Amino acid sequence: MGTSKKIRAAIGQSSWIRKMFEEGASRKAIYGEENVFDFSIGNPNIEPPAEFKNILKELLDDSGKGLHCYMPNAGYKDTRDAVANYLTKQGEQIFSPDDIVMTVGSGGALNIILKTILDPDDEVIIIMPCFMEYKFYIDNHQGIPKFVTSEPDFSLDFKSITEAITEKTRAVMINSPNNPSGKVFSREELESLASLLMEHSEKNGRPIYLVSDEPYRKIVFDGVEVPSMFDIYKYTFVGTSFSKDLSLPGERIGYAALNPGMEDREIVSAGLVLSNRILGYVNAPALMQRAVNSLLNVSIDVDIYQKKRDILCDGLASLGYEFIKPQGAFYLFPKSPVEDDVKFVSALQDENILTVPGSGCGGPGHFRIAYCVSDETIINSMPGFKKTIEKFK
Amino acid sequence: MGTSKKIRAAIGQSSWIRKMFEEGASRKAIYGEENVFDFSIGNPNIEPPAEFKNILKELLDDSGKGLHCYMPNAGYKDTRDAVANYLTKQGEQIFSPDDIVMTVGSGGALNIILKTILDPDDEVIIIMPCFMEYKFYIDNHQGIPKFVTSEPDFSLDFKSITEAITEKTRAVMINSPNNPSGKVFSREELESLASLLMEHSEKNGRPIYLVSDEPYRKIVFDGVEVPSMFDIYKYTFVGTSFSKDLSLPGERIGYAALNPGMEDREIVSAGLVLSNRILGYVNAPALMQRAVNSLLNVSIDVDIYQKKRDILCDGLASLGYEFIKPQGAFYLFPKSPVEDDVKFVSALQDENILTVPGSGCGGPGHFRIAYCVSDETIINSMPGFKKTIEKFK
Repeated sequence: MGTSKKIRAAIGQSSWIRKMFEEGASRKAIYGEENVFDFSIGNPNIEPPAEFKNILKELLDDSGKGLHCYMPNAGYKDTRDAVANYLTKQGEQIFSPDDIVMTVGSGGALNIILKTILDPDDEVIIIMPCFMEYKFYIDNHQGIPKFVTSEPDFSLDFKSITEAITEKTRAVMINSPNNPSGKVFSREELESLASLLMEHSEKNGRPIYLVSDEPYRKIVFDGVEVPSMFDIYKYTFVGTSFSKDLSLPGERIGYAALNPGMEDREIVSAGLVLSNRILGYVNAPALMQRAVNSLLNVSIDVDIYQKKRDILCDGLASLGYEFIKPQGAFYLFPKSPVEDDVKFVSALQDENILTVPGSGCGGPGHFRIAYCVSDETIINSMPGFKKTIEKFK
Repeated sequence: MGTSKKIRAAIGQSSWIRKMFEEGASRKAIYGEENVFDFSIGNPNIEPPAEFKNILKELLDDSGKGLHCYMPNAGYKDTRDAVANYLTKQGEQIFSPDDIVMTVGSGGALNIILKTILDPDDEVIIIMPCFMEYKFYIDNHQGIPKFVTSEPDFSLDFKSITEAITEKTRAVMINSPNNPSGKVFSREELESLASLLMEHSEKNGRPIYLVSDEPYRKIVFDGVEVPSMFDIYKYTFVGTSFSKDLSLPGERIGYAALNPGMEDREIVSAGLVLSNRILGYVNAPALMQRAVNSLLNVSIDVDIYQKKRDILCDGLASLGYEFIKPQGAFYLFPKSPVEDDVKFVSALQDENILTVPGSGCGGPGHFRIAYCVSDETIINSMPGFKKTIEKFK
C-alpha cells in the first residue's frame, strides 16, 4: 500500500540499462575495474572538453553576484539567444530566444514537450528500437505510447507507421542518431515521414507533432548528414542535451526548441515554459546554463568514438557477430546469436561483459553495446565475446 | 490546438509570483535597479557561503575523472550517506542512504514523492496559505488538491482539516516555516495533526502521508523550534533543498527523504528512485551533489534575514499595516488594507513596489512581501508603502 499501483508495477519491470549499470558497479567492486567490461550505459568515458572546465573556473572567479539565483523559468536570456543563433545558423529557420527553453537535460526537454501537447489518451508513436524511457515520459502526461517496428536495417517502416496513425495520434518520437542502433535517418526517409504526418495532420484537423530527441546529433561518423527536422517539418520539436557531445550527462543541461514556423508559436512556447515550471524542474541548472552559453560549437573529439566503433565492429565481425554498422551515437546493436537475447546477455555477463538485452530497447533478438568506454575495455572484452558466441554455436 | 487543453487553461491563470518577478525585471530596465522595490520572489539576495565557492573550485581543480558523469538515479552514495547522517543527528530516527534521494530542488523532491504515492483521483490536502505550485504538482500525478483554510494567525485549523479528510485522502502537504506567512507550526499542533492522520490512516486501511516541504527549515528567528516531523509521524516524507539556506535556488539541488520507520520502506524508496528517473530528472545535478556533500551543517547567516524582518515589520507597523510577525522564512504576509488584494498590489505597483496578491498564495485579503532583498530596498520602499496605504484610508 506504500506506493501507487502504477509505480509498484513499474518497479517490477525496471530499466535494463540501469539494472546492468548498477550490476556493473557491484561487479567492479568484486572483480576489479579492469576485469569488468561494462557496456551497459551511455555514460561517456571521454572527459568534457578543456573549454568547459576553463569556463566554469572563470565563472567562479568572476566576482559577479547572483550566479546561482533564479532566472526566468525558460532560462537566461543570453543562453537562449546563443542557442537561437546556433540553430538559425544550422538551417533555414530563424529562431528567437522564445523558441528555446533551457531544460534539465533531454529527459526534461522531452517531458515538457509532451506535457505541453498531450491531452489524456492522446497517442504517441515510438519508432523501435528506442530508448525505452519514452514509454514512461508519455505515460507521465496521460498519453498512450504506440510502438512500431523498423526495417531490419533500422530504417523507417512506413507501412507500420501508417497503420499506427489514428485520429488520436498527437506525436511521433524519433531519435537520430539512434539509441540503441546507431542509425541516422536519411533526408529522404525524413521527408517521407514529414509528408505522411502532414497529410494526417490535415486529415485530423490538428497537428501531429514530430518530437525529435537529438542528444547524439554531433556524434556521427564518416561525414554522414543529420538533416535538420526543423527544415523538413513544420510541427517539429527538438529535445536535446549537452550530455553526450560535451560529456556532461550528470549535470542535466539541455534544451527544448520549437519550430519557429509552427502555428500557435507563442502559446506553445508559453506552454513549454509553464511545463518546465510546474513539473518541478523550475529551471535548468544556473551555472551550467552559463557554461554552455559559449560552448555551442564545441564538442568532444568525435573521431575517438569513430575509432572505438571501428575496433568494436572489426573485432565482433571477425568473431561472427552480425550487425548493421552504426553511423552515429556510441551504441552497437548486434543480433543476438540466439533468439532469446536475455539468455545471451546473461551468458555475456558470466564473462563479466555487461550489455543490455534488445528486448529492453524495443529490439528483441538483439543486444546493445554502449561503446563509450576505453579502447582497452573493448579490446580486452574480445575473448569473452568469442567464448560466449562459441557456446551458442 | 497547439497545446493540451489543460496547459492552455493553466497559461491563463499563470503564477502571480513569476508574473511579478518578470514585471520586476522589465521595470528595473526602465526605471533603474534602485528605483524598483522587487519583493516578488524568494530569490535570496545573500550570496552563498564562502565554503560553497571554495568547494566548487576544489572539485574543479581536482584532476579526478568522471566529475560530470551519470551516477545511480538516487544520487551519489557518499552524498546520500552525508544526508542520512545529518538527519540521524537531527532527531530520533536512524536514516540509511536508501532513505534519501538527491533531487532537482524541492520541486523535484515533491514531485517524485507525489508520483510515488498517488493513484488517480487520490486527494491531497493543502493547508492555505501556501505555495500555489503544490496544486500543479498534485495534478501532474492525477491527484486532486483539496485546500483547507488556517486560523487567522496561520495556525492549523483542525476542524477544516478533519472535514476535508475522506477515504480518498492520500496525503497532507505542509510547509513550515511557511511560504507565504512565515509561520512555524508548533510541536503541539504537529502532534495533533499526526494523531488525526494516524486515526484516519487506520480507518482508511492505508497511510495518509504527511509531505513536509522544508526548504526554510534553517531560516528561523528568535530561537523558535522547528520540530522534526520524522519523530512525530511515521508516514512522513520530507522534500527540501539547499536553495534558501545556501542561496542556490537556480542550481536545483535538494533531496527527498522518507521516514525510516515507515512500512514498505524498501518499495517506497525504490518508487522514489524510479520516479526521479522516469519523470526525466534522471538525477540531481552531479557537481552540486558533490558540493553540498560537506555543506550540510553550513548555512547563510540567518541573522541577516532576522534583521531584514525587523526593519520591515517595524516600518510597516508604524504605517498602520497589520500582520502576524513571521517566525521564519523570508516572507511577510500582511493584511491588505482593502478586501481586494489584487487592487492593493496593483496600487503598490504604481509605486514600483512589487509584491504578490494573497489570492495567488491561497490567502485572499493579504499580500506577500518576499524580503530577501537588500536592507536599502526595504528602507527605501517605505515612502511607497506609506503613500499606498494612505490612498485607501
